[in-house]
Amino acid sequence: MKHHFADKLAERIQQLKSPVVVGLDPRWEHLPQTFRSSGESLFERANAYALFCRDVCDVVAPLVPAVKVQAAFFEELGPAGMSAMAEVIDHAQHQDLIVIVDGKRNDIGSTAMAYARGYLGGRAVNSTDSRVGAWHADALTVSPYLGDDSLAPFVEVAKECGAGVFVLVKTSNPGGRMLQDLICDGRPLYRRVAEHVEQLAAGTAGACGYGLVGAVVGATYPEQLAELRAAMPHTWFLVPGYGSQGGTAADVAAAFDARGLGAIVNNSRGIIFAHERPEYAQRFGADRWQEAVEVATRDMIAELRAALPCYT
Amino acid sequence: MKHHFADKLAERIQQLKSPVVVGLDPRWEHLPQTFRSSGESLFERANAYALFCRDVCDVVAPLVPAVKVQAAFFEELGPAGMSAMAEVIDHAQHQDLIVIVDGKRNDIGSTAMAYARGYLGGRAVNSTDSRVGAWHADALTVSPYLGDDSLAPFVEVAKECGAGVFVLVKTSNPGGRMLQDLICDGRPLYRRVAEHVEQLAAGTAGACGYGLVGAVVGATYPEQLAELRAAMPHTWFLVPGYGSQGGTAADVAAAFDARGLGAIVNNSRGIIFAHERPEYAQRFGADRWQEAVEVATRDMIAELRAALPCYT
Repeated sequence: MKHHFADKLAERIQQLKSPVVVGLDPRWEHLPQTFRSSGESLFERANAYALFCRDVCDVVAPLVPAVKVQAAFFEELGPAGMSAMAEVIDHAQHQDLIVIVDGKRNDIGSTAMAYARGYLGGRAVNSTDSRVGAWHADALTVSPYLGDDSLAPFVEVAKECGAGVFVLVKTSNPGGRMLQDLICDGRPLYRRVAEHVEQLAAGTAGACGYGLVGAVVGATYPEQLAELRAAMPHTWFLVPGYGSQGGTAADVAAAFDARGLGAIVNNSRGIIFAHERPEYAQRFGADRWQEAVEVATRDMIAELRAALPCYT
Repeated sequence: MKHHFADKLAERIQQLKSPVVVGLDPRWEHLPQTFRSSGESLFERANAYALFCRDVCDVVAPLVPAVKVQAAFFEELGPAGMSAMAEVIDHAQHQDLIVIVDGKRNDIGSTAMAYARGYLGGRAVNSTDSRVGAWHADALTVSPYLGDDSLAPFVEVAKECGAGVFVLVKTSNPGGRMLQDLICDGRPLYRRVAEHVEQLAAGTAGACGYGLVGAVVGATYPEQLAELRAAMPHTWFLVPGYGSQGGTAADVAAAFDARGLGAIVNNSRGIIFAHERPEYAQRFGADRWQEAVEVATRDMIAELRAALPCYT
């Protein structure tokens, strides 16, 4: 196995004292005006997304271990958007950022293997390397509705390539409750998913104690974060919902272990469009949007450090 | 609203007396040799996928109402694969085939909207049309794990554009049982999903009685097909699992109403790689693979007609 995803993540978090993931969710209406001046065709928008996200990576690379690329916004633009996404993944990795593709993909086993190989297969080392992945992300989010045999190919490729998989367990949106909180055999559905994910994580644990298989658990459900942290000792959490969706540093503190590991907290809009937030708009404005990104990132790191004394 | 997806599907099925969907699941190892001669780079493979799938469309367009494009196999090849997928969608639609993109996408509401607009937004009518979709598929498969607010954007765009949405309810793979068959409040989880889908379908019903929101229900669970047909009178079923996965014409007959509507049955490998099947291999071989595709399609149509007397 090459580098182990969780070990690499743990190492970078401890170096930077920062468990923050910056979410690259480019939304056309929110891009600083300078990126929107060339035109609105799918191709021009895709190009603007690539330029914008590359610039965001340059700003945050010294501050955070990872970025999360939201596939939906790139995919909305068709093939041109997918080329932009590939460019952003490459650029981020060249800046030493760990790249999580947030695609929430899955299918029946033989088809899921195509997603697994495509997203998690490694970079080409030589021309006969059969494990080359077209996107070579470090990790991918996947959906569990299709069950264990749909998750298995992702775990297989992750093990081969040292990559990570984050399975949706308890999502941050209000509607997530509709199925995830249904009581099945005396416990919520998300606990059944959590149990399976924890098994997969325990079977792939690295030196840091966490496995290659992680879980998406929303910051908007702090009680469940604490409950799941206790129930899933080998499972790394990807925690969305911080900031714009309402989650606070106090809410997410329970997702971490005593070393400040075991979770990464994502913030998308609150960082990449910080120039629109009241607290930064006047200070920086759209022209100095990069400074707003940097200060918003530093502020979030400071909030998490204050809530997680182990970092100081 | 432009054409209503379910009405268009019903019309084509009745014209052709054929409720068959051909699944475009290009797998490199199974392509006839002629498509693999130019090279194995991602770009060459993507090009081969596009050529092969276009040829399949040309063969089946007079015989079936729809094709289902499996995004995973194209996505595995990176941006070049996505360009090939766009080319295949365009070509199929020019052959008057209805195109279902099997992407099993979803995300939280504001992000799901990007998938919905990207896949289900219509073709540009004029240059100021804001509802243009980059992929302009006729329908998309989506996953329900994120709940009702994640499905809502797909329904909204489907209504605007007359497009279709197929929600995973009971999938064809063995592992689907892990979550889908869990008993929640006295009934299997898939019935809770089915109930919600039927509500969305009833609220978007067209002249044929079926809505824009459909359900994926596997051919491998014939009893559940019959049970769900009764419980979901407004819901069109996309039925995978025929042929290679074990489903037979007798198994899927229960998915149809008395008019022979309400379901479309997908066959991927069994048709597009028919030249490898024992019953066609000797007769046609790889050189005459198109004839194998045509005869396999005609044979499947005949099997379904025999099981569904309303077509004769």
